[in-house]
Amino acid sequence: MTQPLLIRNIRPMAGDSVDILIENGRIKRIASAIEAPGVQVEDGCGAIAIPGLVEAHTHLDKTLWGMPWHRHEQGKTLGSMIANERSLRRDLDMDPARQSARHVAMTMAKGTTAIRSHVDIDTDHELAMFDGVVATRQRYLDVIDIEIVAFPQSGMMIRPGTEALMDTALANGADVVGGLDPCGIDRDPKGHLDAVFALAEKHGKPIDIHLHEPGEMGAFSLEMILERTESMAMQGRVTVSHAFCLGMPDQARVQGLMEWIARLDVSLATTAPPSRPVPSVAACRDLGIAICAGSDGIRDTWTPYGNGDMLERAMLVGLRNNFRADEEVGWALETCTTQGARVMGLDGYGLIEGGSADLVLIDGLGLSDIVALRPERRLVVSKGRIVARNGVVETEYQPA
Amino acid sequence: MTQPLLIRNIRPMAGDSVDILIENGRIKRIASAIEAPGVQVEDGCGAIAIPGLVEAHTHLDKTLWGMPWHRHEQGKTLGSMIANERSLRRDLDMDPARQSARHVAMTMAKGTTAIRSHVDIDTDHELAMFDGVVATRQRYLDVIDIEIVAFPQSGMMIRPGTEALMDTALANGADVVGGLDPCGIDRDPKGHLDAVFALAEKHGKPIDIHLHEPGEMGAFSLEMILERTESMAMQGRVTVSHAFCLGMPDQARVQGLMEWIARLDVSLATTAPPSRPVPSVAACRDLGIAICAGSDGIRDTWTPYGNGDMLERAMLVGLRNNFRADEEVGWALETCTTQGARVMGLDGYGLIEGGSADLVLIDGLGLSDIVALRPERRLVVSKGRIVARNGVVETEYQPA
Ligand SMILES: [Zn+2]
Ligand SMILES: [Zn+2]
Repeated sequence: MTQPLLIRNIRPMAGDSVDILIENGRIKRIASAIEAPGVQVEDGCGAIAIPGLVEAHTHLDKTLWGMPWHRHEQGKTLGSMIANERSLRRDLDMDPARQSARHVAMTMAKGTTAIRSHVDIDTDHELAMFDGVVATRQRYLDVIDIEIVAFPQSGMMIRPGTEALMDTALANGADVVGGLDPCGIDRDPKGHLDAVFALAEKHGKPIDIHLHEPGEMGAFSLEMILERTESMAMQGRVTVSHAFCLGMPDQARVQGLMEWIARLDVSLATTAPPSRPVPSVAACRDLGIAICAGSDGIRDTWTPYGNGDMLERAMLVGLRNNFRADEEVGWALETCTTQGARVMGLDGYGLIEGGSADLVLIDGLGLSDIVALRPERRLVVSKGRIVARNGVVETEYQPA
Repeated sequence: MTQPLLIRNIRPMAGDSVDILIENGRIKRIASAIEAPGVQVEDGCGAIAIPGLVEAHTHLDKTLWGMPWHRHEQGKTLGSMIANERSLRRDLDMDPARQSARHVAMTMAKGTTAIRSHVDIDTDHELAMFDGVVATRQRYLDVIDIEIVAFPQSGMMIRPGTEALMDTALANGADVVGGLDPCGIDRDPKGHLDAVFALAEKHGKPIDIHLHEPGEMGAFSLEMILERTESMAMQGRVTVSHAFCLGMPDQARVQGLMEWIARLDVSLATTAPPSRPVPSVAACRDLGIAICAGSDGIRDTWTPYGNGDMLERAMLVGLRNNFRADEEVGWALETCTTQGARVMGLDGYGLIEGGSADLVLIDGLGLSDIVALRPERRLVVSKGRIVARNGVVETEYQPA
């Protein structure tokens, strides 16, 4: 149980100023001049309030955040980055519980209140990363929703034994079945996808597949995912992450795939990478396809970039999609808020009475303004608890 | 004349800690434990020092910075955005001197010490924007290098009278002859480019042409620019901004154009837009082509984005070019430092004894780290004067 909290003078979604009364982790009331004697009061000072930011695609087990600088010299192919990481995990002191806690605290300070994290499972490290992230999930249970995807980063078909490890993880708290480039990495699309969908069926869990494969190779893998989604009645329970193939130039081909995706209620996750083709957020919106956003890896052995700021991700989604109008920038923000909540199936998400008390206060002139400038978060409330102020997490949530 | 200044304990380009003695706007000495009795001392606290950031492509006359929020509803075509701005300049209170001063102060607070600004010249507003930016250049003469490009934003051939106005601007302090999409906007590539090069010849000034035209149309216009650069002996004095056509898929075609560009010592300016194809920074580097970076418009009638932070631009250059290795991220930073200085021909640029005392102090683990995280600038020194501390410009440089 949390103490009640009254936040005065905030502007939900940059609208008119109201007070918000929070009780038991829920938004009890939204109104002007709420009377609540004896309740802790925070002055919102007219800040904009948005619901908690949703980091819908990241890797809590990968970050080097808070560690000494790692010099990046790795190659650029997916295979080389995967192998590089697998070996660096041995050489560097990458304690997965400590590192995932640092990652959680860092992004919570910027207003993230829910995370879907892929977590590597491979035959070298077995369930070490999974166990570490589970420990972090437990530690932050009261203040952040963490969904764990059992992720065969190093391949399943090409690394026998991985599937059994995934099975164990799914039996022990992993929420989602992961997958990865059935052609490009695993070199056996039928084998890979049959295994992924079988695990989902066995454990009654949804799927989230990394699909970096470009162009027609990716479209082929995507078709195979959609075929299985349909035949195994997994409508509404499959996410395809990245889906660079949906950014290919052949618009008619893409439109056909997108309509199929919409029919099956498959969702997409994007990181809006400036250097890769991406699915169009506007097209998703037109077709009713859920498209959420994520940082992907943050300051890990793959990349020096990333800071866990989902408002910055919203800006990148906006820039990648050439969103300029206020309405469009609002769609970019939705990929980091409501769309992420939809994909994760978050309970009671949103700034509504009865909703979960996850909110972020930010000073600004409007929603486009906060996406463009991303000011420090004045206050972050998650599940009714104050977790960060002015960009710094509260003492009790600080990691080692 | 400026007062001497001793900055202790800073790490030029993230190297070893040194002191820097500044006199008369120049770096007098770089050494350990410099003795300089009576001189003002700043403690660098071990911060990284980089040379002043160079904003090599922006529009000081366009920003709405510091004004009430402008709701973006404009169309996305270049023509509609140009027309929209020309009419909004009348409707909004866009005083060009005031707005350009705000823009300068905002970007100076983030470490920019040199700016190349295109400034609109058209038959509706004539030289009003140019005069405003000239006033701002005068006001900040001691602390920032501002180069003005006379820019026919609304077209030259399609708006008779523009050429004469450009001629006047060039006679009255404009430094560079601008141009814009000879096919796409002006619908007369020969007429447009003949006029641009004639103005350059008449005034003995360099050229910087906005070339948004994609694919083969852009390549055609680019060829016409290169033909004139060669025939009029303008080698080393022409910049092409954007050059999206150099991001087209036909790599052999691009390579031929790039080699021609290298031979003529033509330079490129990029904003690294995530939604458009761009020239490759690595390819420019291989061929010795100067490629600098800029924000383009900041919070104007075209776009809500932008904050004048050239470290953020370096990050976007890095992301757009898929630069991950420390060495590559260094190249991204160079587009916002040394490459910009090369294109602008800045005198004595760089952290060297005898160099111009333009430097930025930033806390971080290394150059990749400061590009990835872009921390607040601890101290900004320009032409030997302290102009900003901790992200805020000093009182004497604050605009209205
Ligand atoms: Zn990922
Ligand atoms: Zn421009």
